Amino acid sequence: MMESFSVKPVKVGICGLGTVGGGTYNVLKRNAGEIARRAGRGIEVAQIAARRPNSRCDTSGTPVTADVFAVVNNPEVDIVIELIGGYTVAREVVMQAIENGKHVVTANKALIAVHGNEIFARARDKGVIVAFEAAVAGGIPVIKAIREGLSANRINWLAGIINGTGNFILSEMREKGRAFADVLKEAQALGYAEADPTFDVEGIDAAHKLTILASIAFGIPLQFDKAYTEGITRLTSADVTYAEALGYRIKHLGVARRTDKGIELRVHPTLIPADRLIANVNGVMNAVMVNGDAAGSTLYYGAGAGMEPTASSVVADLVDVVRAMTTDPENRVPHLAFQPDELSDHPILPIAQCESAYYLRVQAKDHPGVLAQVASILSERGINIESVMQKEAEEHDGLVPMILLTHRVAEQRMDDAIAALEALDDVAGQVMRIRVEQLA
Amino acid sequence: MMESFSVKPVKVGICGLGTVGGGTYNVLKRNAGEIARRAGRGIEVAQIAARRPNSRCDTSGTPVTADVFAVVNNPEVDIVIELIGGYTVAREVVMQAIENGKHVVTANKALIAVHGNEIFARARDKGVIVAFEAAVAGGIPVIKAIREGLSANRINWLAGIINGTGNFILSEMREKGRAFADVLKEAQALGYAEADPTFDVEGIDAAHKLTILASIAFGIPLQFDKAYTEGITRLTSADVTYAEALGYRIKHLGVARRTDKGIELRVHPTLIPADRLIANVNGVMNAVMVNGDAAGSTLYYGAGAGMEPTASSVVADLVDVVRAMTTDPENRVPHLAFQPDELSDHPILPIAQCESAYYLRVQAKDHPGVLAQVASILSERGINIESVMQKEAEEHDGLVPMILLTHRVAEQRMDDAIAALEALDDVAGQVMRIRVEQLA
Repeated sequence: MMESFSVKPVKVGICGLGTVGGGTYNVLKRNAGEIARRAGRGIEVAQIAARRPNSRCDTSGTPVTADVFAVVNNPEVDIVIELIGGYTVAREVVMQAIENGKHVVTANKALIAVHGNEIFARARDKGVIVAFEAAVAGGIPVIKAIREGLSANRINWLAGIINGTGNFILSEMREKGRAFADVLKEAQALGYAEADPTFDVEGIDAAHKLTILASIAFGIPLQFDKAYTEGITRLTSADVTYAEALGYRIKHLGVARRTDKGIELRVHPTLIPADRLIANVNGVMNAVMVNGDAAGSTLYYGAGAGMEPTASSVVADLVDVVRAMTTDPENRVPHLAFQPDELSDHPILPIAQCESAYYLRVQAKDHPGVLAQVASILSERGINIESVMQKEAEEHDGLVPMILLTHRVAEQRMDDAIAALEALDDVAGQVMRIRVEQLA
Repeated sequence: MMESFSVKPVKVGICGLGTVGGGTYNVLKRNAGEIARRAGRGIEVAQIAARRPNSRCDTSGTPVTADVFAVVNNPEVDIVIELIGGYTVAREVVMQAIENGKHVVTANKALIAVHGNEIFARARDKGVIVAFEAAVAGGIPVIKAIREGLSANRINWLAGIINGTGNFILSEMREKGRAFADVLKEAQALGYAEADPTFDVEGIDAAHKLTILASIAFGIPLQFDKAYTEGITRLTSADVTYAEALGYRIKHLGVARRTDKGIELRVHPTLIPADRLIANVNGVMNAVMVNGDAAGSTLYYGAGAGMEPTASSVVADLVDVVRAMTTDPENRVPHLAFQPDELSDHPILPIAQCESAYYLRVQAKDHPGVLAQVASILSERGINIESVMQKEAEEHDGLVPMILLTHRVAEQRMDDAIAALEALDDVAGQVMRIRVEQLA
């Protein structure tokens, strides 16, 4: 059917032939017919920049260079696909492509979260598009869903499992009662986690993605430096078990919520009621839940990473860009969903001003009266207790874990209560605090 | 911030002020600022056609007429929103709007499934858009996800819970062990089901939506008349319980699958493994799972009906149309995802040629040897049994239910086996057959 397309193919240049670059090349090649039947014209890879070949990718017939700027400056290339990663060369590649009047497709969440404002401003000056669906949640078209599919809504909040490594670790801890460090080692062996897992398990990767989602949901500039980030390294399998007994699951969640005072932007372990659909998203899978005033809650689920899922989003962006190439730049979907002159200066709230319910695990001495002391510290600070679960003394040290669920309260007040709890003679060590979200 | 928009607002006309029409009016009014910040210009309701007022909707200040054609022929109106429903007046309204060179947004699944080919052909002639996100799965932007978000993929199959009434009934049957007729009565009282529930419980409504989803997934013309439709009225609470015991849940599913021989297009009760995310979609909620060769399986979940969820999709379509109004018609997203000259004539398979695994409930006489007879009938036809569950005799008639799960087999062969089973002296009445899908 290909011969029926009278328009000449669009030429793209791929910068970076790692996992996603290889996947993008393969998908463009394998599904060329299917893609052209949709786009109305072919998409052809004119040049690839790669430092080394990718064994999962047969690039014979396509010119390959080691110099990414050869692609960026290639006059044949209409669209530059940046799949290098990181902030340095990737940033230069994207900025130079924009200067050259080329559209850009990227999967680089760190680059967009940290330098997106500058990149989109320059792209606007030059009338080009920088598309980034693949930067968040791999193969799930969640940027498109929020930016276009929910454009009628005032978005209230969103919450996402947006790091597959972290979700794999938490799923294993729950299903098999394993310890964090043990599962992390396996995830590294399986290739789900990097040798240095900091970006994943400390929530930095998730915070990059959450920053992007919050901007397009609320119409605010990208402000990665203001995101609160807390990892999953301190979680014990005991916490996972207690949460389960209370009817909850622990997920490493990115939460963005609009309040009158400002916007909450936070990544941390979170208890979610076990019967919520998102609580049942397991293994390396991702999901994002979005609550809008008209649509209510919707959820988007799928593979959050990987060679071809991420390539799926890169190529979908390519098709969008191909369609939008002839449109008036003023009539395109804005980069951050809202018109650039219409972004809001509603502030990002510091974590101390964020509000949530809490799970507290207090290691208390095993004698009567401790609960009364704990309850009075909380009640003096206006913190209401929803439930208390006291375990039998199991440990050699004679300490018993006391698990409390509280109602919603500002973090500042909880910080204060925890300091007072930790100062009690009958409380040993640190109080474990995990935020609770109902996501109703 | 509104004063900063230099472009004049787009004027729309709403035809029909029922549940969705009222919701659309309210959302456009309440979120006018938010929507304009995204679209880059305001969207103004120039006229409404309604036979009676909607008490949930204050239309003061907006001209209202009883004559839908007054809206369709109003030279002020740029976009006609058809929310009348049905095939007769709605069709005339849409066709006349197209003739008048106006874009159309509709939530009418029956109209699109049955007359969509004709409507899109005429719209193409006239260079206008007919948008229909709200026709499938209410507030979930699943048309956009498949048509644009997954454009890189060769779609293998999709499966959806796309009728909220049916899902509410099945959820209640499972959670509370209630009988079908009993729950249906409650659904009618709650307003979830119509006085005549045929469209919902017999799967016709779901087949309309499935027809649309299959077209945009596989690039085929709309062929509602070839969809296989089977309702949930014959399901017993015993079947729901047996399915549960086997690790499955029963959902009323629309399934579309691409095979070498053709495309399966079928709506019927279906056993799904209980640990699949879609098996945990309960109550009136909808979800669609889509499997593409690059993205793998993705899932889209949310409210499938209702005043504002459906309005959310209507208004999102309006924003899309507003953006696309100045584009070259050749560069727009095609109505059925694929370029109109590139649709495929891959046939829809009759149900006899469709393939699935099966749950069979055989009412057998309580003596040895019945299982051997049943097994030999199946094996003679090349049907492999995956598991057998025989219940104790509970009923007065001395019959025992024998539950079988088979491997995948063509329906024709299963029809033949069932006829042979029902002819056995040791088998009473009809064999209950429910298809099984793994959705892996």
